[in-house]
Amino acid sequence: MSYLPAALEAVWWDEDAVGYIDQRSLPHEVLRRRARNTDEIVDAIATLAVRGAPCIGIFGAYGVALTHQLGGETESFAAAAARIRAARPTAVNLAWAVDRVLGAVPPEYLSEARAIHEEQRAVDRAIAEFGAALLPDECAVLTHCNTGPLATGGEGTALGIIIAAHRSGKRVHAYVDETRPLLQGARLTTFELAAAGVPATLIADASAAATMHRKNVVAVIVGADRIASNGDTANKIGTYQLAIGAAHHRIPFYVAAPRSTIDFTLADGETIEIEQRRPEEVRAFGGQATAPHEFDVYNPAFDVTPGHLISAIITEYGVLRPPYREAIPDLATRPALLIRAAR
Amino acid sequence: MSYLPAALEAVWWDEDAVGYIDQRSLPHEVLRRRARNTDEIVDAIATLAVRGAPCIGIFGAYGVALTHQLGGETESFAAAAARIRAARPTAVNLAWAVDRVLGAVPPEYLSEARAIHEEQRAVDRAIAEFGAALLPDECAVLTHCNTGPLATGGEGTALGIIIAAHRSGKRVHAYVDETRPLLQGARLTTFELAAAGVPATLIADASAAATMHRKNVVAVIVGADRIASNGDTANKIGTYQLAIGAAHHRIPFYVAAPRSTIDFTLADGETIEIEQRRPEEVRAFGGQATAPHEFDVYNPAFDVTPGHLISAIITEYGVLRPPYREAIPDLATRPALLIRAAR
Repeated sequence: MSYLPAALEAVWWDEDAVGYIDQRSLPHEVLRRRARNTDEIVDAIATLAVRGAPCIGIFGAYGVALTHQLGGETESFAAAAARIRAARPTAVNLAWAVDRVLGAVPPEYLSEARAIHEEQRAVDRAIAEFGAALLPDECAVLTHCNTGPLATGGEGTALGIIIAAHRSGKRVHAYVDETRPLLQGARLTTFELAAAGVPATLIADASAAATMHRKNVVAVIVGADRIASNGDTANKIGTYQLAIGAAHHRIPFYVAAPRSTIDFTLADGETIEIEQRRPEEVRAFGGQATAPHEFDVYNPAFDVTPGHLISAIITEYGVLRPPYREAIPDLATRPALLIRAAR
Repeated sequence: MSYLPAALEAVWWDEDAVGYIDQRSLPHEVLRRRARNTDEIVDAIATLAVRGAPCIGIFGAYGVALTHQLGGETESFAAAAARIRAARPTAVNLAWAVDRVLGAVPPEYLSEARAIHEEQRAVDRAIAEFGAALLPDECAVLTHCNTGPLATGGEGTALGIIIAAHRSGKRVHAYVDETRPLLQGARLTTFELAAAGVPATLIADASAAATMHRKNVVAVIVGADRIASNGDTANKIGTYQLAIGAAHHRIPFYVAAPRSTIDFTLADGETIEIEQRRPEEVRAFGGQATAPHEFDVYNPAFDVTPGHLISAIITEYGVLRPPYREAIPDLATRPALLIRAAR
């Protein structure tokens, strides 16, 4: 296989289409595809060809700009935009990005989408710098799922920190959970780490605690799907278990996420609805059944890690420490950090 | 697929052959095969068609009896028995069972093999009864890997407890870790639970802690590969993580294992050498690559759960509670429990 040489681009504007790497065929093939209309935008999101909360947001923003550019034929522009917005119901970033584009005047839709993308890059860079500063000069860290360039459309969050630490000259070794059932760690994170030249080792999810113990892991770093105002964090299934493991081993458990991931209206994580995914994801692999046909499966897409298990939340504004009930609302009132460089 | 109606028999004496369920084709097909000579006995063990440490021992014992019954043609009986003994070098039970049969007088070989099998059933039944008594009348429990009839050739250990509780009329719901990388939970434990009619749900290993929290799991029950005299327990990779999760949720973590699993000479688990298995097990599934070629992998077969995380060790002699440094040496001096019913 060939790795991409430099920084990965997960999604991009491609004049009369939105370009994306089809993440379903990684790491074996790097397929660059073009979504040419609303249906293809929705399909790419729904089938996880494009995935990762911020990356979906950027892709959806470009998708709205594309839809507007094409002009409506079979449905109104508003209906098409609403379909994009709902293509993955739990993705807060998608709804946010779509709404933000729609908040601009129509001639500005594309530059608004570009601004979202550019801001993501800047946000990711800030998170990476704040996070990398927390790591010692030589260390093993453990991460879960996929939080690199493929996930954010920028530089990545949790993985962006690991890559930034490596680039700054720190000797970082990354342990990567394969992240069943969809194996984003095995398929995507390994690919991104190899592309960035970071020394790394793949493990089965069940090995995480043993790896913390045996390999002197000094920190666990994960991303976030949604953060409540007390720090409770919804993220890929398995995150909660890692946080418990980190607490047991007395090593810091870091969540890396942009401010946009925080739902300031949400008092805590208890009420977050957990998306249940198809049982076939657990009962099979690559079309090959691994368990009896129709055997009952519990397949939550996410779990909620309580804020008290999180050592710090690394945002583009800096590192938040407990008590999050104070640190997080403070963040809500901070001015937008970034100049819209792309406009 | 069709489930077996009653108690599963993993291996059995079949007059002029040793019968076995080919575990490689489970759960999709229940292939009952007959090993008719030494070569077929050795082959079934070496190819993992018969697996599970105690089950291999029983099968090997019957194999020696069969070999003796057939009479030697191309090799001496001693050489044939030695081949069976060495069919899986790491299987301590196999060597033990073969030696025990060979220690009998030749006319007694088959009854010695039957006695080994009958004793396994009796040990398993005792473990199941002691364990089932610990469970409330209505409960959800979580288990890992495969510890049922297919593993022991008897009733099973951890899974034997769950099945016995169900048979006694308790409303037990079992959550089963798929148990990557080799998926013994998904492939074998699901099959055994379905065969026994126990309501059960398959989960990805990363979901275990979330399942404990969301599904009101009241106990985690696992088997053991080797137990040190302070209670430290080597078992399938992922066990340690479950024990940490159980402690966090303040639910009991039970290890179910026969006395023969305890290494009374071992002071603690720190010195247990952890077998490293092939990286392809994690980098691929069913021959299909899931991660970049040659990406580094850490693939320990087992982990060691410290005794202080284990609420009780359930043996055929009863339930051991901490401090294990007292309870376990006490067990060493207890007389053999069982009458050889089959002789």
